[in-house]
Amino acid sequence: MVKFGILGAGRIGKVHAATIAASARASVAYVADAIPDAANALAASVGAKVSTIDAILASDVDAILIATPTDTHADLIEQAARAGKAILCEKPVSLSVERIEACLPVVEKAGVPLMIGFNRRFDPNFASLQKRLRDGEIGDVELVTIISRDPAPPPVSYIERSGGLFRDMMIHDFDMARFLVGEEFVTVHALGGALVDKAIGTAGDVDTASVQMQTASGKIVVITNSRRATYGYDQRLELHGSKGMLRAGNVHMTTVESATASGFNADVIQNFFIDRYVAAYAAEVNTFIDAMASGKTPTPSGHDGLQAQRLAEAATKSRQTGEVVRV
Amino acid sequence: MVKFGILGAGRIGKVHAATIAASARASVAYVADAIPDAANALAASVGAKVSTIDAILASDVDAILIATPTDTHADLIEQAARAGKAILCEKPVSLSVERIEACLPVVEKAGVPLMIGFNRRFDPNFASLQKRLRDGEIGDVELVTIISRDPAPPPVSYIERSGGLFRDMMIHDFDMARFLVGEEFVTVHALGGALVDKAIGTAGDVDTASVQMQTASGKIVVITNSRRATYGYDQRLELHGSKGMLRAGNVHMTTVESATASGFNADVIQNFFIDRYVAAYAAEVNTFIDAMASGKTPTPSGHDGLQAQRLAEAATKSRQTGEVVRV
Amino acid sequence: MVKFGILGAGRIGKVHAATIAASARASVAYVADAIPDAANALAASVGAKVSTIDAILASDVDAILIATPTDTHADLIEQAARAGKAILCEKPVSLSVERIEACLPVVEKAGVPLMIGFNRRFDPNFASLQKRLRDGEIGDVELVTIISRDPAPPPVSYIERSGGLFRDMMIHDFDMARFLVGEEFVTVHALGGALVDKAIGTAGDVDTASVQMQTASGKIVVITNSRRATYGYDQRLELHGSKGMLRAGNVHMTTVESATASGFNADVIQNFFIDRYVAAYAAEVNTFIDAMASGKTPTPSGHDGLQAQRLAEAATKSRQTGEVVRV
Amino acid sequence: MVKFGILGAGRIGKVHAATIAASARASVAYVADAIPDAANALAASVGAKVSTIDAILASDVDAILIATPTDTHADLIEQAARAGKAILCEKPVSLSVERIEACLPVVEKAGVPLMIGFNRRFDPNFASLQKRLRDGEIGDVELVTIISRDPAPPPVSYIERSGGLFRDMMIHDFDMARFLVGEEFVTVHALGGALVDKAIGTAGDVDTASVQMQTASGKIVVITNSRRATYGYDQRLELHGSKGMLRAGNVHMTTVESATASGFNADVIQNFFIDRYVAAYAAEVNTFIDAMASGKTPTPSGHDGLQAQRLAEAATKSRQTGEVVRV
Repeated sequence: MVKFGILGAGRIGKVHAATIAASARASVAYVADAIPDAANALAASVGAKVSTIDAILASDVDAILIATPTDTHADLIEQAARAGKAILCEKPVSLSVERIEACLPVVEKAGVPLMIGFNRRFDPNFASLQKRLRDGEIGDVELVTIISRDPAPPPVSYIERSGGLFRDMMIHDFDMARFLVGEEFVTVHALGGALVDKAIGTAGDVDTASVQMQTASGKIVVITNSRRATYGYDQRLELHGSKGMLRAGNVHMTTVESATASGFNADVIQNFFIDRYVAAYAAEVNTFIDAMASGKTPTPSGHDGLQAQRLAEAATKSRQTGEVVRV
Repeated sequence: MVKFGILGAGRIGKVHAATIAASARASVAYVADAIPDAANALAASVGAKVSTIDAILASDVDAILIATPTDTHADLIEQAARAGKAILCEKPVSLSVERIEACLPVVEKAGVPLMIGFNRRFDPNFASLQKRLRDGEIGDVELVTIISRDPAPPPVSYIERSGGLFRDMMIHDFDMARFLVGEEFVTVHALGGALVDKAIGTAGDVDTASVQMQTASGKIVVITNSRRATYGYDQRLELHGSKGMLRAGNVHMTTVESATASGFNADVIQNFFIDRYVAAYAAEVNTFIDAMASGKTPTPSGHDGLQAQRLAEAATKSRQTGEVVRV
Repeated sequence: MVKFGILGAGRIGKVHAATIAASARASVAYVADAIPDAANALAASVGAKVSTIDAILASDVDAILIATPTDTHADLIEQAARAGKAILCEKPVSLSVERIEACLPVVEKAGVPLMIGFNRRFDPNFASLQKRLRDGEIGDVELVTIISRDPAPPPVSYIERSGGLFRDMMIHDFDMARFLVGEEFVTVHALGGALVDKAIGTAGDVDTASVQMQTASGKIVVITNSRRATYGYDQRLELHGSKGMLRAGNVHMTTVESATASGFNADVIQNFFIDRYVAAYAAEVNTFIDAMASGKTPTPSGHDGLQAQRLAEAATKSRQTGEVVRV
Repeated sequence: MVKFGILGAGRIGKVHAATIAASARASVAYVADAIPDAANALAASVGAKVSTIDAILASDVDAILIATPTDTHADLIEQAARAGKAILCEKPVSLSVERIEACLPVVEKAGVPLMIGFNRRFDPNFASLQKRLRDGEIGDVELVTIISRDPAPPPVSYIERSGGLFRDMMIHDFDMARFLVGEEFVTVHALGGALVDKAIGTAGDVDTASVQMQTASGKIVVITNSRRATYGYDQRLELHGSKGMLRAGNVHMTTVESATASGFNADVIQNFFIDRYVAAYAAEVNTFIDAMASGKTPTPSGHDGLQAQRLAEAATKSRQTGEVVRV
């Protein structure tokens, strides 16, 4: 049994706590949150106790799940590592590459497992696609197209402290690109604009963007993002390889289709990220529990978190300067 | 809070118990099963006590969920009704129309709610389709095509006590036909054969069948069934109406698609009925709980169970005699 | 070079004449039509001469293409056969089974080839499906679903002399059923109603119908027809076999798809039968030309025409009597 | 009647000649080709005479269709312009931007119409998509994804004189980008590699490439190309706008789909460009004929040809230098 302490009782903390509670091999022992009501409610729902971060780190829990605000992640990872706990931290480690570079050696020195919660790797569709790629179904991958579009932009107040679209939204796609291609990217070029909401532009960010990247061996990845899609939460991957193509599409709300004089109409796609990735979040936590049980090193690792952040930083810089950035 | 006693701790009993346990408005108080280990395991998983049927009926539970073998349903419904309990009974009430006709007046006299577990009405896809039909999206329905194909035939030993394909498998489609068309059928004609497994024919049943039925107003429903589909559990509906068509398709295992020199390949469809209808089973139980809470009469009712069984009986007779049966 | 005389310069006569004119192995020598302008226009467009039926039959043409009104087909087939000409006749030979039974021996005695223009056998989609079935891709066929829906009903004046839906519209599906299953049907049951237009019912016909048929070996075919489909000319086949399923879908007007808050919208399907089957009509005529060149017997044969008509007659009788008809 | 002289009796010349011959408003008067047999065969098939380029330009033809090798286009356009003929020239005007810049003023001075044969604008699917975009169906376009993949790379000998992938293959996508977005691009960045065939790299070209471009107003277009796709000739467009998405997909060989234990299989897509764009080629020529008849200026114009070539040149330079190119 893996005994967890959960730091952060917000939206994602709750999703993960439910997965742990439903596992036959893990349990939630403690919950900490700056908002007492949130901590109490979550603790009650999974039979855990409310506590403080310090007390949890000092307790006998085996693992710490970090689901607190982003700017606390790196500090908490270091504290948990020093306390000898295995760590599952929501992405990102930090919006700053430098901060991650300082954090990871602390974890390494402590010798504890650190897994970063890039949930999309665990989506059954994307995971199946990646497995089929690795199994050679389409030969060598040459060209990857990643499309991510949110249903609607977040408030400008969120945008302002988000680190920008490349660090906040496209970070998932950078990780997915590395996950799929299995090589590092050496060239990054980004384009962007505030086409959805001018206020986002005024805040120094973009809401519509594209990035193209290339590995040393020549493999190309193209990513496009929009902060608004009227038809739902659009999440697609397409891989072109020497023997064929593999792609993963969206999940429609229902399989119902109509046909009238206006044409054939299929349902909109799922539009809330937690609904869309409910299976992914569960698989992510269970993968961590499996790794704890088997003694294997869980991935995505802290290094994966660092590399994705480096790409986000390169893209941010490229968009700002208008030039190509070498990583 | 609706307090449940669950009779039957098998496959479906477990699915329903989990839904009740997860509901904020209901709980499982007691579980009974002829197999003590099954009862114990289920009771433990939902925080209930193991008991006997008689004791549960004599207890303070509000509702009885009947998930025992088919041949016990009618007797248990009558006992539960006499005990004044609300009843959610897995389909069918009985394989015998006469037995159902005897049972329902007992329920009526007792004045308790009785809901029959035709799970497919609660599938989000089919429920959405039916709602859109009722909302007038395709005008008046004229022609309905229902396709149901199981992944693989059950053992002949099961077939022998199943009541035959029309009562055991197509019963779901008869209920769906009534649910969609909203009228009773007056003409039934069935065809069938043992094309999948000759042993099924030797046992007096068929594994491949079609039925066409018509209402007094002329609406037509065509149902086809097969006990075997190599590509999964095939469950489709198509409605043709005066203003257009509505249909609900299958659920694929993933959204992954490949394209190679062999063409474009999409994943097989879900092939286990509990996976396919997991959301339907939950919605079914929650509908019953809602009805209990609001005092509304839940459907599908005992009468719905009776009418579906009458169609199954008519189809069975039509297939055996080769003639059209008027209902 | 196969030299053709074309009888009938209407819609289908024109389509076939263009195919013959475009063939490197055939030419149109003469055209006859009761309407001089129609004959002149068609003759001019393919470099042929206008003539009379008698003169054409007495000429040196190798083959007669009959595209005149249905009630003249049987007589013209007999005349052409006696004149020693190969014959390609639009379906049907006659609306009367008896008349066909009288006609075919005349053809047989004359020893001339007779091909009946069931165009759908030559549709590239349906032909590919049938070939893949014959090649064993889905094992033995067990269950066939045929859906045919016209965009809009013809005028009642047409209905009145059409022979009824089963002879006029479903005749294509009866031929397709035989083409796909490769066995004769022994049981026919039909349902129908005038749900689209009551005037069609007053005229003694139906506009919505279903037929289920079974072969001696147990194979089942289900056909549904409607005289009206708001979304286009709906033409689909689905075959269920021991190793899987094969189906052929509709052809959309374009491949354009939109996605908005209203869902995903694909274009309507082709809605004019000549557009939908343009490739089929050409392949039909070229098959006849090939057969002439190679000395092979072309199919579908006169016997195929007879058998389809027998099914149409059985279905008509079944619908009228409400009983099953044995063929 | 528009009287045409056709220069070049190759693959495309033949396709266009057939369209002209089938038009009620145009005819082919003369054909010229360096290969006498080709000229003779084509002239015979459309009832035209074989002649020389000079004689055709001196004749009474109204229009010249240029379908000769690329390196002759600019010279022939100038000659035809000076002869006062309307001109339909296959793309591109020249592989050299400078040469086009020199050529267009000659046309302008002569005051003759010049249309460049970017066939894809006339594909019914793409044309419908563009019309729906212009009609406002998805609001303002923000992000465009263009995917073009050839079935197989051409011989290296062809590659060597092709001007490179961006001028030879992606040129179509550059034109499509301008056609769809309706604004000029100011920033171009290209990536590329020889991932399909190293010999293509040795010849100084790439076979796999991506380009991202942005207009002054911020609209982004992403193009990916591969010289090889195992599943056919892949040609797709996707537009993301403020109100939704519009996309145009591929055309499958048939509508047949199978379902087996291996999943659901749809046919490969059309894989020969002339088959895929047969309707587009005809619509292109008919658009030119319409413009001649109505006195309207046909598009795409010489300026469109120039602008596409400028993007191709910018992309070539970007790929070679690794830097962003401002246009």
